[in-house]
Amino acid sequence: MKYAVIGTGGIGGYYGSRLAQNGQDVHFLLHSDYEFVKEHGLQIDSCAGSFHLDRPAVYRDVHDMPKCDVVLVCLKTVNNHLLESLLPPVVGDDTLVVLIQNGIGVEQDVQERFPGFQLAAGLAFICSAKAGPGRIDHQCYGYINFGDYSCRDPEALQRVADDFNAAGVQAGLVEYNEARWKKAVWNMPFNGMTVALGTQTDRLLRNPSTRNLIREQMLEVIGAARHLGVERIDEGFADHMITTTDAMTPYSPSMKLDFDHHRPMEIDYLYTRPLRIAREAGFAMPRLEMLEAELRFLERSRTA
Amino acid sequence: MKYAVIGTGGIGGYYGSRLAQNGQDVHFLLHSDYEFVKEHGLQIDSCAGSFHLDRPAVYRDVHDMPKCDVVLVCLKTVNNHLLESLLPPVVGDDTLVVLIQNGIGVEQDVQERFPGFQLAAGLAFICSAKAGPGRIDHQCYGYINFGDYSCRDPEALQRVADDFNAAGVQAGLVEYNEARWKKAVWNMPFNGMTVALGTQTDRLLRNPSTRNLIREQMLEVIGAARHLGVERIDEGFADHMITTTDAMTPYSPSMKLDFDHHRPMEIDYLYTRPLRIAREAGFAMPRLEMLEAELRFLERSRTA
Repeated sequence: MKYAVIGTGGIGGYYGSRLAQNGQDVHFLLHSDYEFVKEHGLQIDSCAGSFHLDRPAVYRDVHDMPKCDVVLVCLKTVNNHLLESLLPPVVGDDTLVVLIQNGIGVEQDVQERFPGFQLAAGLAFICSAKAGPGRIDHQCYGYINFGDYSCRDPEALQRVADDFNAAGVQAGLVEYNEARWKKAVWNMPFNGMTVALGTQTDRLLRNPSTRNLIREQMLEVIGAARHLGVERIDEGFADHMITTTDAMTPYSPSMKLDFDHHRPMEIDYLYTRPLRIAREAGFAMPRLEMLEAELRFLERSRTA
Repeated sequence: MKYAVIGTGGIGGYYGSRLAQNGQDVHFLLHSDYEFVKEHGLQIDSCAGSFHLDRPAVYRDVHDMPKCDVVLVCLKTVNNHLLESLLPPVVGDDTLVVLIQNGIGVEQDVQERFPGFQLAAGLAFICSAKAGPGRIDHQCYGYINFGDYSCRDPEALQRVADDFNAAGVQAGLVEYNEARWKKAVWNMPFNGMTVALGTQTDRLLRNPSTRNLIREQMLEVIGAARHLGVERIDEGFADHMITTTDAMTPYSPSMKLDFDHHRPMEIDYLYTRPLRIAREAGFAMPRLEMLEAELRFLERSRTA
């Protein structure tokens, strides 16, 4: 299968390179690093085994790329307005567009702009970041779940998962809504709270007050998910997420890294959208609404 | 009447000096500034007119003080454990103890330790701080409301208010519970939020997200107050408090000043107690519970 990677950063650079290393036909869209990668290739420093791609197929203009069977969208959602121009050149009649992005409501918005596209969600559980031009630092984890949003061919997403697994990346299929909301159970508390209190996951969980608060926030997400019809989730999932995070090394979620590096935060899809979806369905999440307000304030303060 | 001032800081130093300036018999307890004030007196720099007390009656040991008719307790509540030893020497059979302190539950705790004492609450609306040894900086406002908690003589508190008014400090009598909870409507949102977001009142109100959050938090306090039987308060009071604060100069509440100066914060009486009282009565305040958790975290981080 022919793959396009839109956004060759920590996520797209890692997954795309794994697929290419395993012989898939992968086409990478690059921006500032195009010249460097064209000349020097891509270096993947990975806890799962480092490697180098000598001559990846790289592009600086999406119009030079071929139509692909699978498009992996690995941009930050704050850049999703670019999809208007970036997707059409690489998407053909049977193309599957996989949005490997954070948050809730992403597929809905892309589908609205492109009603005919076949969309799927990619839920990445990975610590990986761009460490420099053409250099990806994959620190830990790495598995990815796919959720079908609007695929016409029910087998297509399984073939993508098979390609990932063959390339050494653990991948599975999950029910779309359940997957997005389950990820939100972790994402919504930890992304915002590490920014609001200028800290990392471990310290939030060591302090009994914030440990309890994180759990209450998780219960808000779980309550919203159940209210919206996600059945395979209950309160025990909060405890499972907390125990899992206890076992992780001290961790700065993506929003904390964005904030620290003065990049825009993904407040829209991580907070505003899910909060609005839940509220419109009659379910309030007061603690996470408060967190959203704090993040909006901090974002504004920083740019002021 | 004979007055004792326990805690000669921004509040006690100002009100006590106004009373003394107007001829009342005021006895000040001092700690670190005793020697200085003994020699140089008290200088009050005040928006309502500056003045100097040449020879105030000052004490470093409460056992040297006389029994008084009125004891004004002007300590931060974080020091209320000291009342165990500070109150008995100055309190006689008919003494009225006025707790000019922040928060909810203060009178209950003091009454539990001293069942026979006559207690009242003092609600100070004032910006005043110690600017140096023997020097009080009274920046603005200044009025004080008194609420009867357990006075045996119903006239006693009125006489105190009369003394304050005669000394040029606007003072009135209010219903105890209503007064404490109304003050909490302002105190609970602004004290904690200025600490949590490292800002001042004006910027919280200029940002639409936090302006709305402040209002939601005020509605939580108003809801709790009504649930607890305070009748003369409704949602309009939140809008009134916000409009009032809009008209104030940019302001750092006392908890923000405490935090900035590495002093302990009054989290117990400003948050934990009212939250517990409301919760035990079946009323939840999720946003203010979250704020309490954030403050506990920040307090712990700072000392760690």
